[in-house]
Amino acid sequence: MAGSTFGTHFKITTWGESHGKGIGVVVDGCPAGLPLDETDIQKFLDRRKPGQSRYSTQRKEADAIQILSGVFEGKTTGTPISLMVPNQDQNSRDYGDIASCYRPGHADFTFDRKYGFRDYRGGGRSSGRETIGRVAGGAIAAKILGQLGISFLTYTRSIGPVSISKSSEELLSEITSGTAAGILSNPLYMPEEPACKKAQSFLETCMKNKDSAGGVIECIITGVPAGIGEPVFDKLDANLAKAIFSIGAVKGFEIGDGFAAAAAAGSENNDNFEMKDKKPVLSTNHAGGILGGISNGMPIVFRAAVKPTPSIAAMQNTVNKEGETIEISIHGRHDPVIVPRAVVVVEAMAALALLDLAMEHMGSQIKFLEGFGRNLE
Amino acid sequence: MAGSTFGTHFKITTWGESHGKGIGVVVDGCPAGLPLDETDIQKFLDRRKPGQSRYSTQRKEADAIQILSGVFEGKTTGTPISLMVPNQDQNSRDYGDIASCYRPGHADFTFDRKYGFRDYRGGGRSSGRETIGRVAGGAIAAKILGQLGISFLTYTRSIGPVSISKSSEELLSEITSGTAAGILSNPLYMPEEPACKKAQSFLETCMKNKDSAGGVIECIITGVPAGIGEPVFDKLDANLAKAIFSIGAVKGFEIGDGFAAAAAAGSENNDNFEMKDKKPVLSTNHAGGILGGISNGMPIVFRAAVKPTPSIAAMQNTVNKEGETIEISIHGRHDPVIVPRAVVVVEAMAALALLDLAMEHMGSQIKFLEGFGRNLE
Amino acid sequence: MAGSTFGTHFKITTWGESHGKGIGVVVDGCPAGLPLDETDIQKFLDRRKPGQSRYSTQRKEADAIQILSGVFEGKTTGTPISLMVPNQDQNSRDYGDIASCYRPGHADFTFDRKYGFRDYRGGGRSSGRETIGRVAGGAIAAKILGQLGISFLTYTRSIGPVSISKSSEELLSEITSGTAAGILSNPLYMPEEPACKKAQSFLETCMKNKDSAGGVIECIITGVPAGIGEPVFDKLDANLAKAIFSIGAVKGFEIGDGFAAAAAAGSENNDNFEMKDKKPVLSTNHAGGILGGISNGMPIVFRAAVKPTPSIAAMQNTVNKEGETIEISIHGRHDPVIVPRAVVVVEAMAALALLDLAMEHMGSQIKFLEGFGRNLE
Amino acid sequence: MAGSTFGTHFKITTWGESHGKGIGVVVDGCPAGLPLDETDIQKFLDRRKPGQSRYSTQRKEADAIQILSGVFEGKTTGTPISLMVPNQDQNSRDYGDIASCYRPGHADFTFDRKYGFRDYRGGGRSSGRETIGRVAGGAIAAKILGQLGISFLTYTRSIGPVSISKSSEELLSEITSGTAAGILSNPLYMPEEPACKKAQSFLETCMKNKDSAGGVIECIITGVPAGIGEPVFDKLDANLAKAIFSIGAVKGFEIGDGFAAAAAAGSENNDNFEMKDKKPVLSTNHAGGILGGISNGMPIVFRAAVKPTPSIAAMQNTVNKEGETIEISIHGRHDPVIVPRAVVVVEAMAALALLDLAMEHMGSQIKFLEGFGRNLE
Repeated sequence: MAGSTFGTHFKITTWGESHGKGIGVVVDGCPAGLPLDETDIQKFLDRRKPGQSRYSTQRKEADAIQILSGVFEGKTTGTPISLMVPNQDQNSRDYGDIASCYRPGHADFTFDRKYGFRDYRGGGRSSGRETIGRVAGGAIAAKILGQLGISFLTYTRSIGPVSISKSSEELLSEITSGTAAGILSNPLYMPEEPACKKAQSFLETCMKNKDSAGGVIECIITGVPAGIGEPVFDKLDANLAKAIFSIGAVKGFEIGDGFAAAAAAGSENNDNFEMKDKKPVLSTNHAGGILGGISNGMPIVFRAAVKPTPSIAAMQNTVNKEGETIEISIHGRHDPVIVPRAVVVVEAMAALALLDLAMEHMGSQIKFLEGFGRNLE
Repeated sequence: MAGSTFGTHFKITTWGESHGKGIGVVVDGCPAGLPLDETDIQKFLDRRKPGQSRYSTQRKEADAIQILSGVFEGKTTGTPISLMVPNQDQNSRDYGDIASCYRPGHADFTFDRKYGFRDYRGGGRSSGRETIGRVAGGAIAAKILGQLGISFLTYTRSIGPVSISKSSEELLSEITSGTAAGILSNPLYMPEEPACKKAQSFLETCMKNKDSAGGVIECIITGVPAGIGEPVFDKLDANLAKAIFSIGAVKGFEIGDGFAAAAAAGSENNDNFEMKDKKPVLSTNHAGGILGGISNGMPIVFRAAVKPTPSIAAMQNTVNKEGETIEISIHGRHDPVIVPRAVVVVEAMAALALLDLAMEHMGSQIKFLEGFGRNLE
Repeated sequence: MAGSTFGTHFKITTWGESHGKGIGVVVDGCPAGLPLDETDIQKFLDRRKPGQSRYSTQRKEADAIQILSGVFEGKTTGTPISLMVPNQDQNSRDYGDIASCYRPGHADFTFDRKYGFRDYRGGGRSSGRETIGRVAGGAIAAKILGQLGISFLTYTRSIGPVSISKSSEELLSEITSGTAAGILSNPLYMPEEPACKKAQSFLETCMKNKDSAGGVIECIITGVPAGIGEPVFDKLDANLAKAIFSIGAVKGFEIGDGFAAAAAAGSENNDNFEMKDKKPVLSTNHAGGILGGISNGMPIVFRAAVKPTPSIAAMQNTVNKEGETIEISIHGRHDPVIVPRAVVVVEAMAALALLDLAMEHMGSQIKFLEGFGRNLE
Repeated sequence: MAGSTFGTHFKITTWGESHGKGIGVVVDGCPAGLPLDETDIQKFLDRRKPGQSRYSTQRKEADAIQILSGVFEGKTTGTPISLMVPNQDQNSRDYGDIASCYRPGHADFTFDRKYGFRDYRGGGRSSGRETIGRVAGGAIAAKILGQLGISFLTYTRSIGPVSISKSSEELLSEITSGTAAGILSNPLYMPEEPACKKAQSFLETCMKNKDSAGGVIECIITGVPAGIGEPVFDKLDANLAKAIFSIGAVKGFEIGDGFAAAAAAGSENNDNFEMKDKKPVLSTNHAGGILGGISNGMPIVFRAAVKPTPSIAAMQNTVNKEGETIEISIHGRHDPVIVPRAVVVVEAMAALALLDLAMEHMGSQIKFLEGFGRNLE
């Protein structure tokens, strides 16, 4: 399995390191005929681009996407779409100190133990730049899902101890009713002005303390019809869990009421059914849009816990190559919080997981198979 | 992908419904030469067998495992191991009411929408009996891991609002020091006597109220060497997340400090390194044993949130085939809480995910490849 | 990958040994709603059942199929279909001689080298009985393909040096025009009476000589619309090649003109296009129905070379456990030729490979994806 | 499955079209620590580079490989190796005539039917340039196999009706005994001087006739220990068959005696065993090095039938977009025979298939698993 490929039908394979020639992704299984150009992908990448606020790394990267294959006359051809972002600001400084010790909270130690040595330049493959491939691939998945009427609303629910107070339902209804213009137009992607301000001042304190913060990202997916997801191992929630947990700093994932459901009574947690417009629908959404691993037609709501950035300037203990316990303070271009930039990564991975299962479902419906000769003409 | 297969190297494929002829699993990729008989598997299955306490369904099932292939003269042959548990107590009662409406919190609605109809007998494929195949396959994985020096300690951390107070570190040290004899010998698998008693009385109240409870399961895996897990998509934590989230009632998954890490400072959350016995080790275990998706040599610690049993006798609203909103009260043989029986399911899935990545790792080490001609002799 | 699973969308996993409790298969990914009962599968199995002529093993096996899961009220449910054939005639004779030496032409030696020991009872997993799972799974695939208007005509082209003289086009036109009634109703599945007679007398001589024969199987698939197969690695011909070559005794595979194409000129081998009924069609079928790995709408025509049965009563040299070179003569219940019984195995594997790619194609068509919300209702 | 990925452990994903920005491949699962630079790959690519003789296309391409990731300080890091060859000579001529009709023998028609339109520039994805990614990935696989003592000897057995007379055993022994210096140093990779001369004059006639030729490629793999390959579906021969048949122009594949085995008697075709140097070995190699899908320690010998180049200047019938039957003569830079350039493609695909199964085998040996904690240190 090797590990750099995600998906079965809509499949991405990513490559690249922080300080190599670039970062890329090959998207295989994209249906033919989809209008696609660089701007579709660039607008996703721009959401994770460094240097957009004082809370992100000051590394200078345009992160300009190049389409190398798979698009002809403005449309996807059905063959692999190769995408690449060249690295620009590889900062040729001396890595001596980092090269000779393990940074706490980083993958330095485990890569070394797994492979016998490691690319110490900026974390190599375990750098956050690895997510560029995910976001580029996810942008295409999201475009297809958008054509199917499926939308994503992804935002920062909390940073450190500061959390927004509105529920996902309230946010969704503000968006839907149009009274929410601009709720995401702040540097933290936090859709509640007072919380956002408080979070910013919290981050200033962090930075002063040479420390860092984490947070929680919430994602709402609307427009998903009932029926997507496979029972047993490829449940929609299981594949979302893997997709989100494969993002570097994620330490928790929950869907619907999540951990709170474990403390609730069955009578509180069950979503009852009722008739609406002559169709059966769910009255509430404690389940977060998924029952038995299959979408139930309600919005899919999940949250991811993101750990604080491990690179901090505060003193920490570690060991060096000579086998000595030493102290280090990590300087350089690090985000005091990665949550805002990770919002689009979460959205991209969710789009990839959902589209893959949607395609699985479409390929296994007997009514399509029965018409398939005609459909090929 | 179809969805009934888990794993790439150590691969299980499960089949069967609640009220069909039986439940089974095919285990492919098991190394040859492993001593194996029914008792290795039966002792795992007995941990999830119904009817062991007044808090589980009274359905009568011996759940006796049969090995149908893959074992010869007491050892695995390297070819697929087919395992089956015949269903005994299929209870031929009338399913009329359940067949004609969707039970809240169950997969009835989503199966119907996905497939156009459903097997309404006891939930069909979405029944908890589906987990028999996982547990049987996981028993073999756990036996192999046991031979590699890897052990599992899995237990109930909370039921409803009642939680144990000891940390995973404390529990682990009690077990290791031998002062913890019998801490798991209670019907709720809750390793703290006072909490267990409180949880039992809480469950009595639930049952009186015709209601149900959920809880949190914690799993500690010890003896895992550093280096297991693939960077990027097949991270050890990502594959564990999928494995655990593919279990029916799981609504949340977290590793190490999990959601709490999102609120912590980097300086609190990072695990520092130190030299111990001339080797680099981690001083703390906030990360839960995994860094950058790769095991770091510390115990792996994760938690799963399990929702309350959806089948409750309390009145609920639903809709019937005629498109009417009706009230139902679900009777029958249901567990007021499934957490204790789910403990071994969580352990089995964790064993399967871990062994699969261990085998992936072993197949990609150049030092083995270099000696491989000799090793085949 | 472990090796006992075939297919991505329509996926079979087989298990079982010659002298174990039985042989089985789990079919995952079968669309829901397909009418299915045992007779659909039994009629395929009966075509490979032993003892149907004097040219096949006299082992007594009813090979009666049991459906253990996945079918409810006469229809597939969309969940795994578990199928099993119990072994009946395991013949408890002494295996001493076979257990202690390697039979020439068999997998005894390679299993021993791979796994360190082997199940010597009738070849264990490498027995021809392993194909029961393939045929059972293929019967379901063929039924689905039949509903899509796709038919299979599979037969013996040659046995030893005796070959039929008609081309595949001639046979196909006889079948289509209805002048070919009964051409397959002979024990060798050889659709030409004089060749069949000659082959029978050739086999009599083989048997007298304590020797065995091989042959060539040809398969024609009609009704496949253009467009099935993925460019590059999952070409329709590549997946057919793997499917057919995974059958025990196959030593060669060719499509269309096959090896003869290698000696032809481009002007002879190219199939020109012409308009017919206002549609572009191919004027000839040298390519065997596939261009660039994708079906072109013409009949798919391929051939498989099957080696002679390795178990022969004639004297052969081998080595025993003591490291001595010895002579053996293999007695027992062996087919002097397996070609007639392998005809349905070839057909089953072709059906599995073709359906899997048809489902892949259906899941990746943007026009289906675009309508997919509505289609789920 | 999408189709542009090959392998499970050593996995390549290719991308690119004839007239796009370039051709590339991502190699995932390569063990860490392998010394690797561009020359390792370039020497393989140079064997398929155009313009090396008058029998290949005159398109000017340096086919210079670039390593974009996965190599650090001269060694593989264990993470994906991204390789790219920029296209240089995309020849901006008018594609009007080819764009508006289907070339006989090409994938134009099937791509159009599959995707609804096609990239008509030089065949797009179905161009022979697609094989650059295979060869680049295969070069790395072959380097690893070389370190394990496994060698490849791949050559042209026949072109059109002209065939070499020596057997694979004779060729192998000439190579081994060192009496064969230079047998592959001719433009057709045909290891027999008289046949090579005859083939060249045959090709001259082809070219004069505005026609083209095909041929047969033979590959001998030595040094493969017994035990590689998985029983049932992932047999070594089945995976080789798929690997080779996935190459554009291949129409037939056979192993060992291949189709000739179908006409032989069992007593002729079986390879007997004998003791040699106190080890059991096979006396002959009719099986071509594989028994029951598993390598048996003998050289692996297989052949691939390659069809004549479909692009010919001779007049052919086809249809245009207006639905008219027309005549075309295809001009441009086409190889009159692609066999010599396909030799290295066959070798590359064989290396990929073999290494993947070798890694599968190594990951499933219990003796490695048992030592795995220690091995990680």
